[in-house]
Amino acid sequence: MPFFRNGLRRSVGACSSAWTSPSPIPASLKWTRRCIHFDGRNRLSNFWSPTQRKPKGDRSHQNGEIDGHELLLRAGFLRQSASGIFHLLPLGLRVQDKIEKLIDKHMTRLGASKTSLSSLSSEDLWRQSGRLDGRDSEFFRLQDRKEARFLLSPTHEEEITKIVADAVHSYKDLPLRLYQITRKYRDEARPRQGLLRGREFVMKDLYTFDTTESQARETYEAVRQAYVAFLTDLRLPYLVANADSGNMGGKLSHEYHFASDRGEDIIIGCDTCDYSVNEELFIAPLDKAPAPPGKLRLQQATEIGHTFHLGTRYSHPMQLQVLDANNKQVSVSMGCHGIGVSRLIGAIATLLADEEGLGWPMAIAPFEAVLISTPSVDKADVESLYDQVHNAAIDMTIDDRDRAIGWKLNDADLVGYPFVVVIGRAWADKQALELQCRRIGIKEEVRAADVVSRIAELSQKL
Amino acid sequence: MPFFRNGLRRSVGACSSAWTSPSPIPASLKWTRRCIHFDGRNRLSNFWSPTQRKPKGDRSHQNGEIDGHELLLRAGFLRQSASGIFHLLPLGLRVQDKIEKLIDKHMTRLGASKTSLSSLSSEDLWRQSGRLDGRDSEFFRLQDRKEARFLLSPTHEEEITKIVADAVHSYKDLPLRLYQITRKYRDEARPRQGLLRGREFVMKDLYTFDTTESQARETYEAVRQAYVAFLTDLRLPYLVANADSGNMGGKLSHEYHFASDRGEDIIIGCDTCDYSVNEELFIAPLDKAPAPPGKLRLQQATEIGHTFHLGTRYSHPMQLQVLDANNKQVSVSMGCHGIGVSRLIGAIATLLADEEGLGWPMAIAPFEAVLISTPSVDKADVESLYDQVHNAAIDMTIDDRDRAIGWKLNDADLVGYPFVVVIGRAWADKQALELQCRRIGIKEEVRAADVVSRIAELSQKL
Repeated sequence: MPFFRNGLRRSVGACSSAWTSPSPIPASLKWTRRCIHFDGRNRLSNFWSPTQRKPKGDRSHQNGEIDGHELLLRAGFLRQSASGIFHLLPLGLRVQDKIEKLIDKHMTRLGASKTSLSSLSSEDLWRQSGRLDGRDSEFFRLQDRKEARFLLSPTHEEEITKIVADAVHSYKDLPLRLYQITRKYRDEARPRQGLLRGREFVMKDLYTFDTTESQARETYEAVRQAYVAFLTDLRLPYLVANADSGNMGGKLSHEYHFASDRGEDIIIGCDTCDYSVNEELFIAPLDKAPAPPGKLRLQQATEIGHTFHLGTRYSHPMQLQVLDANNKQVSVSMGCHGIGVSRLIGAIATLLADEEGLGWPMAIAPFEAVLISTPSVDKADVESLYDQVHNAAIDMTIDDRDRAIGWKLNDADLVGYPFVVVIGRAWADKQALELQCRRIGIKEEVRAADVVSRIAELSQKL
Repeated sequence: MPFFRNGLRRSVGACSSAWTSPSPIPASLKWTRRCIHFDGRNRLSNFWSPTQRKPKGDRSHQNGEIDGHELLLRAGFLRQSASGIFHLLPLGLRVQDKIEKLIDKHMTRLGASKTSLSSLSSEDLWRQSGRLDGRDSEFFRLQDRKEARFLLSPTHEEEITKIVADAVHSYKDLPLRLYQITRKYRDEARPRQGLLRGREFVMKDLYTFDTTESQARETYEAVRQAYVAFLTDLRLPYLVANADSGNMGGKLSHEYHFASDRGEDIIIGCDTCDYSVNEELFIAPLDKAPAPPGKLRLQQATEIGHTFHLGTRYSHPMQLQVLDANNKQVSVSMGCHGIGVSRLIGAIATLLADEEGLGWPMAIAPFEAVLISTPSVDKADVESLYDQVHNAAIDMTIDDRDRAIGWKLNDADLVGYPFVVVIGRAWADKQALELQCRRIGIKEEVRAADVVSRIAELSQKL
């Protein structure tokens, strides 16, 4: 959908607010240094988001392909430290924090408690579970000054099973649901696509503990529903695919994908039933299971989560047992359930990017709206408008940087705020603003009194 | 101060709320499994805080010494994974999250932007800064599958200097203040006292960037004031000590300590001036500087933060330069400023522990209050009281676990909630509660209508 700017390109005035420092700043400096404001309002002048110029020979739009990772770098969300290893800059960290809060909401509803386990895991534990592979594994390994051997945890089944085994001894202590959102490590041979396949990444991992297999399967179903609720909050098209290779008696596991023509997986689905499976696991003609009734269709997709019923895979070797209601010692039935948090950032960057820049669902946008003003508008009016929107719990920021209006509009497009509010030409005459929403394709005049309700209304689609 | 319980020891009834799972639970199980509630209220039934029994030959109270770390383990705040390496359980993570929010508040007031840098740092960068020591260093080192060499970052001066050097080229981009709260690593020869000296730990590190030395010193002063404001919010006795060895022309640096008879540092202060210095740095008789006018006194203390003016120590070797107002290329003047977040948890645990258990300042308590009821009180009354307190923005939790009242009161003391609210004997007659605050030594009857204002009033001292 074509989307045009209103052509305002007058430069805003240089920052004139006082620089509050212990000693007065000479007038010659006051007008030239970067401004920091201390009034508590979100302001881009206080917020470091270094934009990179479009590189010569830019490949982010080559052949109609838009590279979300390239845009994350250019818009100042992150920086590469080494192959597959990234630093989050302020914009990127805000997105990650919002994803974390959204996950917290759904994990709390499951009755799950949040923990934070160490990133260093003793090799001994991994030997006990039987997962300590040979030298060709993807573990980052290290040893301390006493030559004790550790690995940087790629996941935490071993550690959590040990913690729970030390504390839980009766079926009365179960069910138990523990999760964390922490950095994980995997020494990928070929890291690629930025956050989509990194060597250091942030994951949510939930571990569930039940006394019996059937209770564990009930827990599994509750988690699956929580994942669907989480994905629904993002308001993006998703797929849930069976991830076990057989229909009957197999392991219980699902993969959660964004449907995306830019995804690296291919999901095979039936057009009349809910059969859906990753191409890698599809065996045709189906061996024992009945064939799905409808036509099969293919959909490219990006995996962002999985749920997995583990049974006693870890509780048995690691001796996590409880006395059940019949006073019998049983191995606890477990599940593990991941969401790739940094992967989600990379996947959404790619999914919603267009010619202008990035795009974000309301639920995880770094800011939900940006307020841009022309020089003709009184600063007090801008701040009063900000306060009105902010008090309505809309997470807005003011772009008060010493830049031209056109630059700011382009920058807002690059960052991908769900809403851009321009306070300018129509302000003096009729107290009207321009409300822009690129994802919906809206650019309209709104009265100041109506801007909150209009944003609330439109955000139902974002 | 002696503090007595009112002797209520009747057991509360077993949990009777429905277990909401996809299929109905047989009645025989409904009464025996651990309960999870889904009504959105904070409830300890949903919250995993495994208490450890007091070990035989318990040493936490030996010779009148109370071991805060031992209490953190027993009360279910954390678990040890390896020497100097700890997992945070839900109570510990809540304290850490609250410290992080409090730090965020003061960093935002400084105009600092929050980032999150990788934990893996390339050795090349550390070679460039000249900090890559020999084999006897405290670095955790590792290499990837391609034999590229990394270390687990103990701090991030090198990485942040590189990031800023790539993005900042003019004095107009400065001042700049960037911080993060992340895990750091140091392979201590002798980790000790739990979180006080760990090998994996959480720190806040703020890096500041200014064009000139004098601007950097103004920034330094602003940061020092922010540290004092942060410590003031904790309402605990603190010391600020000079950490440079000479008075004149030396490096500018301060250490921030809790005054504590259980601390490992000794601070030397003058009783009539503001001279204050770590014993390690005290050189007597003072060489060139004038002697402080008053008597010197000694105070044991625990360091929890430092501020440090770096000048061009990193910007020069790592080529972080900007054009100044006179169009001259200058090396940026930097500062680095740390707060030991996990260290703070360990230090406060030790500082406020008494015979009954831990204690927490309101600002960082895992919950600000716990609500305990006797079996005679209607569940609806308990929930209505919780809602009243919760709506007043007091972070309360209900102890609805299937345990006796006496056990819950002891557990509340062990955890160290600032306030314990008991809804029991005086409820039916006169809608009165018992409000307990061990740190102030208060146990009083309060009318339900007054509980919020009374907590607000008392919390000024916590």
